This record gives sequence, C-alpha cells and structure tokens, in this order.
Amino acid sequence: MAMKWIPAVLLLQMSCCFRSGNCGKVLAWPMECRHWMNLKIILGELVERGHEVTVLRPSASIFLDTSKSSGLKFEVFPTSVSKEDLELFFTNVVNVWTHKVSRDTCLAYSPILQNLFTEYSDICQSICKDAVLNKKLMTKLQESKFDVVLSDALAPCGELIAELLSTPLVYSLRFTPGYTIEKYSGGLPHPPSYVPMILSTLSGQMTFMERLHNMICMLYFDFCFQTFNKKKWDQFYSEILGRRTTIAEIMSKAEMWLIQSYWDLEFPRPTLPNVDFVGGLHCRPAKPLTKEMEEFVQSSGEDGIVIFSLGSMVRNMTEEKANIIASALAQIPQKVLWRFEGKKPDSLGPNTRLYKWIPQNDLLGHPKMKAFITHGGTNSLYEAIHYGIPVVGIPLFGEQHDNIANMVAKGAAVELNFQTMTRSDLLNALEAVIYDPSYKENVMWLSTIHHDQPMKPLDRAVFWIEFVMRHKGAKHLRPLAYNLTWYQYHSLDVIAFLLFCVASLAFLAIKCCLFIYQHFVKMEKKKKNE
Amino acid sequence: MAMKWIPAVLLLQMSCCFRSGNCGKVLAWPMECRHWMNLKIILGELVERGHEVTVLRPSASIFLDTSKSSGLKFEVFPTSVSKEDLELFFTNVVNVWTHKVSRDTCLAYSPILQNLFTEYSDICQSICKDAVLNKKLMTKLQESKFDVVLSDALAPCGELIAELLSTPLVYSLRFTPGYTIEKYSGGLPHPPSYVPMILSTLSGQMTFMERLHNMICMLYFDFCFQTFNKKKWDQFYSEILGRRTTIAEIMSKAEMWLIQSYWDLEFPRPTLPNVDFVGGLHCRPAKPLTKEMEEFVQSSGEDGIVIFSLGSMVRNMTEEKANIIASALAQIPQKVLWRFEGKKPDSLGPNTRLYKWIPQNDLLGHPKMKAFITHGGTNSLYEAIHYGIPVVGIPLFGEQHDNIANMVAKGAAVELNFQTMTRSDLLNALEAVIYDPSYKENVMWLSTIHHDQPMKPLDRAVFWIEFVMRHKGAKHLRPLAYNLTWYQYHSLDVIAFLLFCVASLAFLAIKCCLFIYQHFVKMEKKKKNE
Repeated sequence: MAMKWIPAVLLLQMSCCFRSGNCGKVLAWPMECRHWMNLKIILGELVERGHEVTVLRPSASIFLDTSKSSGLKFEVFPTSVSKEDLELFFTNVVNVWTHKVSRDTCLAYSPILQNLFTEYSDICQSICKDAVLNKKLMTKLQESKFDVVLSDALAPCGELIAELLSTPLVYSLRFTPGYTIEKYSGGLPHPPSYVPMILSTLSGQMTFMERLHNMICMLYFDFCFQTFNKKKWDQFYSEILGRRTTIAEIMSKAEMWLIQSYWDLEFPRPTLPNVDFVGGLHCRPAKPLTKEMEEFVQSSGEDGIVIFSLGSMVRNMTEEKANIIASALAQIPQKVLWRFEGKKPDSLGPNTRLYKWIPQNDLLGHPKMKAFITHGGTNSLYEAIHYGIPVVGIPLFGEQHDNIANMVAKGAAVELNFQTMTRSDLLNALEAVIYDPSYKENVMWLSTIHHDQPMKPLDRAVFWIEFVMRHKGAKHLRPLAYNLTWYQYHSLDVIAFLLFCVASLAFLAIKCCLFIYQHFVKMEKKKKNE
Repeated sequence: MAMKWIPAVLLLQMSCCFRSGNCGKVLAWPMECRHWMNLKIILGELVERGHEVTVLRPSASIFLDTSKSSGLKFEVFPTSVSKEDLELFFTNVVNVWTHKVSRDTCLAYSPILQNLFTEYSDICQSICKDAVLNKKLMTKLQESKFDVVLSDALAPCGELIAELLSTPLVYSLRFTPGYTIEKYSGGLPHPPSYVPMILSTLSGQMTFMERLHNMICMLYFDFCFQTFNKKKWDQFYSEILGRRTTIAEIMSKAEMWLIQSYWDLEFPRPTLPNVDFVGGLHCRPAKPLTKEMEEFVQSSGEDGIVIFSLGSMVRNMTEEKANIIASALAQIPQKVLWRFEGKKPDSLGPNTRLYKWIPQNDLLGHPKMKAFITHGGTNSLYEAIHYGIPVVGIPLFGEQHDNIANMVAKGAAVELNFQTMTRSDLLNALEAVIYDPSYKENVMWLSTIHHDQPMKPLDRAVFWIEFVMRHKGAKHLRPLAYNLTWYQYHSLDVIAFLLFCVASLAFLAIKCCLFIYQHFVKMEKKKKNE
C-alpha cells in the first residue's frame, strides 16, 4: 500500500468552523463563581473553533474579568446592583450556609436557605431588568443576529433574552436545588428510590430510612422551596413578553441541557436525549510549576506532597480552626501546600507552606501528589478524578456535601466535618487516604472512567452547541412530554378514567345481582303466598 | 508554524486494537433474520479492528451463512430442531402476523401472538439446551476465555452462556414486545403518557384516547403477555446454574444495551447511561449498480426510479394483490424495480422490472431515486433515512406498523394497509411522496439528524463493546435501581409508611380533640349539677 501523507496543520484545523463555513455568533448570559469558570472553558473552545462569542457582563460582576478572557467580546451594561452588594451577598451565602445550615437533613434548609435564595432571586431580577429594559443594549443584540444563547439555568434571564431575540437556547448547569428546574422545565426524571436529591447529602444505595429521607427532601423541594420567587418572575416574564407565561415555561424551551457531571462523580440516573453529562470539561494537562514551588515539591522526596484548598469562596477561618489544621499537617512526613489567606497559624509545621493562590490543577497532575484536602467543589473534585488523587473532603456549602458523599460511597475519599473535626480526625483521614491502597485504587478507577469515554466532555458540549447553531435548534431530541400537563404526564387522567370504568362496571354488576336477587325473592314470596 | 506530517497509514490504524494491545475475544450468540444482519455488521467491525470473533451457530440456522461472513469463526453445534422446523416456524409467523392479527389494537394480539411467542420460546429453549448441555462445546468455550458475550435480548440463552463462562454480556436489540425486557431487566423507564408501547401502532403526540389505548397496551404486555414462557425459563436457568434464579435476573446482568434505533426514526424517550441508541449502524455508502441495472435506471430520465420491496421475509402474495400493485405501478412515469418472487402479474407495465433480489442500499443511494415502497422493516427504513428517500409504507408484521407510524408522524411517509389497499390508494400515495415536496424535506431532515451525531452509531456500539472488554464490564453505568424490588423502585414502601404516619397523626389528633371535648362536656355537666 502506498504511503499517503496528511499535513498535521490540516488535522488541527479539522475542528475549525471555517472549514465547514459554519462559523456562528454566540451570546452568553453567564453566572458568577465556578459557573463562569466552566462556561468560560466552553466559550474559549468556541472562540478557538472560529465562532464569535459575546458575553453579556453586568457592570457589577465579580468573576467576569474582561482582561483575562482573550478572544471573548464583552458587552458591559450598567446595573443598579453594585459590585459591593454582590460581594456582600456571596460572602454572606458562604458564611450562612457553612455555619448555620445543618447538613443532616434537607429540612434544615428552611427557612435560612430559602431566605438566601429569595435574596439571590431578587438580585438576579434586578440585573435582568437592567438588561432587558436597556433599549440600546437590546437593539444592539437584536441587530447582532446571534445563532445561539448560552446560559446557566441557575442564572435566570438567559432564557428571556433568547426568547426576545428568537434565538435557540442551550443551558450549562451543575444542578438546581432539589433538581426542580431539571425536572419541571427539563422533563428529566429523578426517581426518589435511587436518585438522591441534590442537597440531601445522600449517595449510593439507600437504605429504607435514607429513601424516606430522600422522599421527604423531594416533597420539600417540590412543594415548599422556591429557587426563584415564582410569582415575581412569572409576572416579570409575562410583562416583558406581553403574554401570560411562566419562567418554567420559558426555561423549558432550552434545546440542550449540558450538565456538569458524569458517572465518575455521580451514580447513574435516567437521562433524556436532549441532556448530556459533560462533567470535568475544564480539566486540562498539568503545566510545569514555578521554580520555587517545584523545588519545594521535589524536597518531599519519596513521601510526596499534599495540597489543602477550600476553594476560591472561603477566604478566612478562625485562628483556632487554622491551628488545629496546621498542627495535624505538621505531623505528616509529606510536604504540604496550603492555600490560606489568614494570619499564619502558630502551630504551622516546617513541612507546610502557605500560599494565597496555588496552581491546583498543575499540582494535582504532579507525580509527587499524594492526597488532596478539599471542600469538594465540583471542579476541584473533577481535577482530583482527572489525575486520580485520593481526597480528604471537608464540605462546606452548596452541593459539596453531596459531592463528597459520592466520593466516599465510591471509596475514593474520607469525609470530615468542618465544624467538629479535631487534629486527630484530620491526621487519621490523611493517613487513610495516603497509606490505605484502596483509596488510590478506587480513585484511579474513577480516573479511568473519566478518561475512557466515547468523546471528551468538552468536545460533546461544543458539538451540541454547534449542532443547535447549524440547525437552529435540536427539537428532534425533545421528548413529547413537554407538551403534557403534569397530570397527563403522570397518566392521572387515564388512570382516573380506567378506575371510573372499573367502578361503573362493578356498580352495574352489583345492581344487576341485586335486581336478580330481589326478583327471585319476590317470586319465592309469591309462590309461598300462593 | 512548522508543518508536521503524520502518515495516513497510521491514521487508518488508529482504531485497530493492536495499537493499544487491547485485542480481545468475542463470543456471539446470534438471532436469526434481520437481527443477525445487524449483529454481523458489529462483529465484522470488531474483526476489522483486530478482535477474534466466534459465533455460536446452531446446525439448524437459516440466516447464519458461514461462507459469506469472512473473518468470523463459527462454532457449529448440533440441535434437535431442524432447519425445516425453523423455516416453517418463521414462515408461519409472517403469514399469521400479517393476515390474522388485527393491527388496530394491541389486545388483538392475544391469543394469536401469544401462541406464536410460546412456540418461539420453546424452540429457543431447545436450541439453548442443545448448547449448554453439550459438555464438549461448553468446555471448549470455557477454555477459550472470552472477554465479552454479545447477544440479542430477543434470543434467550446468550445471558446464560455469559453467566456460565463468567464473562460480561452486551445486548444488541431492536425491541421486545411491550418493551417488557428493557423495562424489567434493563430498568429503562417507558412512561405511557408519551412513550408509545411498541406493537401498539401509536406514535408521536398522543390524544387522550391514544394515551388510554397505550396504557391498556402497557397493562396487557406487563400482566397478560409473556415474550418467553417465564415458568419454563426460570426453572431451566435455575437447574443449569444450580441455584434459584429467574431469566429476568440473569438478563438484567447485561453491561450495555445497544438499541437499534435513534431519534431520527423514533421520538425521544428517557434513557439510561448503560443504554445506547445505535440505529442505522448497518448503513454504508452505495456501491455502483450492475451494468444492466444502471442502464435501466438511467433510462428513467428526469422522472427517476421507484423501488418496491417487502423485505426478505415475504416471498409471495396473491395474484390479485400482485395485479393491483402492478397496475398502479404501471401508471407512474418513473421506472420501477420490484423485488418479487411470484408469478409475473398480467398487468405489469413496461416501466416495471421484477427482480428476485435487489441491491436495496445501492439503489436508495442512487441519485435517480424518488420513492421507496417498503414494508417498513427497521433496516430498510434506516437505509431510506440514510439517503433521504420518502417512503410509501405497507407494514405487515412485527414493529413495522410502529416504524411506519413514526415515519408518518414525522411527515416522511404515507401508510397503506396491505389487506385493503386499492390501485388508486397506491397511486395516490406514490404521487404524494414524489410530487409533494414536504415529504422529501422531512425525510431529508431525518437524514440530517441521522448523519449529524457526535459519533457514528457503529463506532459507538464498538466503543462500548471494547470498553466492556477492556474493563471486564461497565458497572459504573448501571443505575442502582437494579438492586431494588419493584415496590422499592416505585417507592411504594416509603409512600405507605408516610401515609401510615399521616393517618396515625390524624387519628391521634382526632382522639385528642374528642378527649378534650368530652372532658369539657363533663365539666359543664358537673357545673350545671352543682
């Protein structure tokens, strides 16, 4: 066979939209925090492939740093909410959720969490109003003729803008409380018998009591909790669109739901053709460390290193807590890199260095890496899974308890309680994940699952966004359940009709029997009388 | 940027298992008819990629032609069932199902279809016994140390052999009656409100009456119909495995379910992570026609051609029916290629040629192709979708009515009733699909959906089989629902407990009220008496 050659440059360009002439225009309505980090990766890949990406950025944004996002176009609009308001709100969320919400049952969320979400809902609505009532901005967006709107289902407004621009919508999301939006707008079934509710801290195979707990959580989130203040949003969307509608209805128009999770982190559950699980799409190969850090890491020798980070949202802890942690870390032979912004703890050992920021991904990918002490944010856990690093989980808020519960159920982590953990708890947990080989084996299996997929998560996410752009939607993936009311969806009308028929037949049968019986009784009496 | 070159030969080998050192041994327990055609494509691809594939072939097989299947190794074993028995059975199935089973309601299937399936179940069990009780054969299979068993869920025994060999199992299937095996062994939800039962002839958005019909079908298949004689198979599997078990339990051990369908042909429905929809994996590029056929096709000029085929299972029809069809075909300006084995009809027009066999895929891929008259077998419809050819559907048996109902609901086909159709019915249907552009547009959209997938169906099917081989299973994709009983799955125990609690509380509350009331009444009386 004659050898044929293909230029590598052409191979590199194979994914570029110029090749197919399908370059499109993407509008993003982002959310703050980690959500933006994930969306940025997708948007960056779209830019790489030649698409034009515009990000709607409220002037008050904290995380949307225009300088660091090369290739993205930012459309900044003024908002009545200030950056300080937002920062105060997010700090408050972290503090309240970490310290005041019991993690033992989802019922504990009420009313503290409900208050936080009501406040969040109001902030979102203010920003949304500032966007859609900004005539200049909306005219500019109309004229831009976008091919797709990308939004986070936990950042309402994206779907309204998509509706106003008559542009198809794609959601990227990790979860909404109690999976209510995925269920009621996305049509995604979550059977409470084997799918633990998010924020329930349940995981894996559930016992009877756990299934009972899960059912109560489901009922609570379905009937007592409101992620967004329904009345206010329904009224607002109806006013803006000039017809009676609900936020749930407008959200249900999303063409694709890209969920930031996969079966490495979560346990398998039912899905739909217009839902794709693209967890860990932000993971990338590790880059070399700085010279100083590399030297410190190499100085650990055979023992290797441990990193400690509670994520970007937690900036301080009490001196007492810091000392407990520092004294535990001082006991291990590993070198420790600790992301910490407070006052240097007195009990800090010589093996531990404090950093205001650490290149977490690059450290996790380092061959000396032994264990990762983390709050259990989805992105952090995905980096641990990507490189197969066992975890000591100290969950604080959000879905972190659920994430760590999943990792524990899969035998890849030990969980600690931030409020009650002692020096020896942390020490024991670290020794377990470093020296008990089962943790390493289990997390390596998760890593295998993560890497051995038919297509990489980022490629799948981009494929579906490009699909929606190419075909102006993906209606063929949309189950017909969307057109049913809730009682039709559960076949309650059909069941009621069938029960009515059975009851009518039974009634008729009894009536007939009675009639025949009475007839015979009369006949007998007549006979006797004769 | 410096140009780098990669040899095309290397690119071609990228999918080969030699490269990764992951070549494995595959054992297939095939089914007859179309099922074998689909499995053969997958097995052929596995051979192409360097795996060793062994097919267990009963001596009585009709379709498993050892000479035509290059690269596959056949392990033939003697059976008490003869080839003539099998042929007689399949001919009988086609005749009875086509002529004696009403297609208006699934209830009409009873008892005729039940009898057919009971007979089929007995034949399968005879063949299965001949395989698993053949000590020499089983010892040889044990020694071969296979990495995966591939089977069709409609051909029981594959799962038993996999269990005996302690080898992971992958199913390939189109459907089982009423989706009962997919539901009860695969755990795949089929909500009756928007997923039409297979063999119900329902499709698309259902009205109240249709949902009622669908619910009745579901109840019928769930409680009154048995695809395989449960008692006999449970006892047989228990005897062979030396422990009490059921066929449903052994079937539920399948690691992956590869379903021969996709959202081009079907409407979207819930799925699970261990289920992949790989419909149309057999479609391949059209090859050139023979010289004689190409000349005939070219002689059609601008009008183009129509092909007529009722598949490989229907070999004859009445003279009267053949004449009705021939006279209708004679009326159209197109040239017609008719796959027909009976006596040449008197009314055959000069534009129509009869063939005992036609290269259906190559003709459908020909640029002159205008319309396809078909029985609506899944493979035939997938070829029509692949090339975007509008369809006149004359469904006869099996899932053909459902397939054609789907194509009609998607605006890509006109349906005719084989029993009652007249010359003008066929003529009108043909004129509609040829001259009304909507049919072509709709089927071209289905073709787009079919081609625009993240990965080709065959590649996905092979990926998952190789995954199961590489990792000795795919347990991480298996929902935990598999470990629940039916009442736990539906949370009936939890609901009962909650209702009990509510009732107890209500009872206590009433008791308290009564007690207080009586207490006050007594007090009042006392006061009055004083």
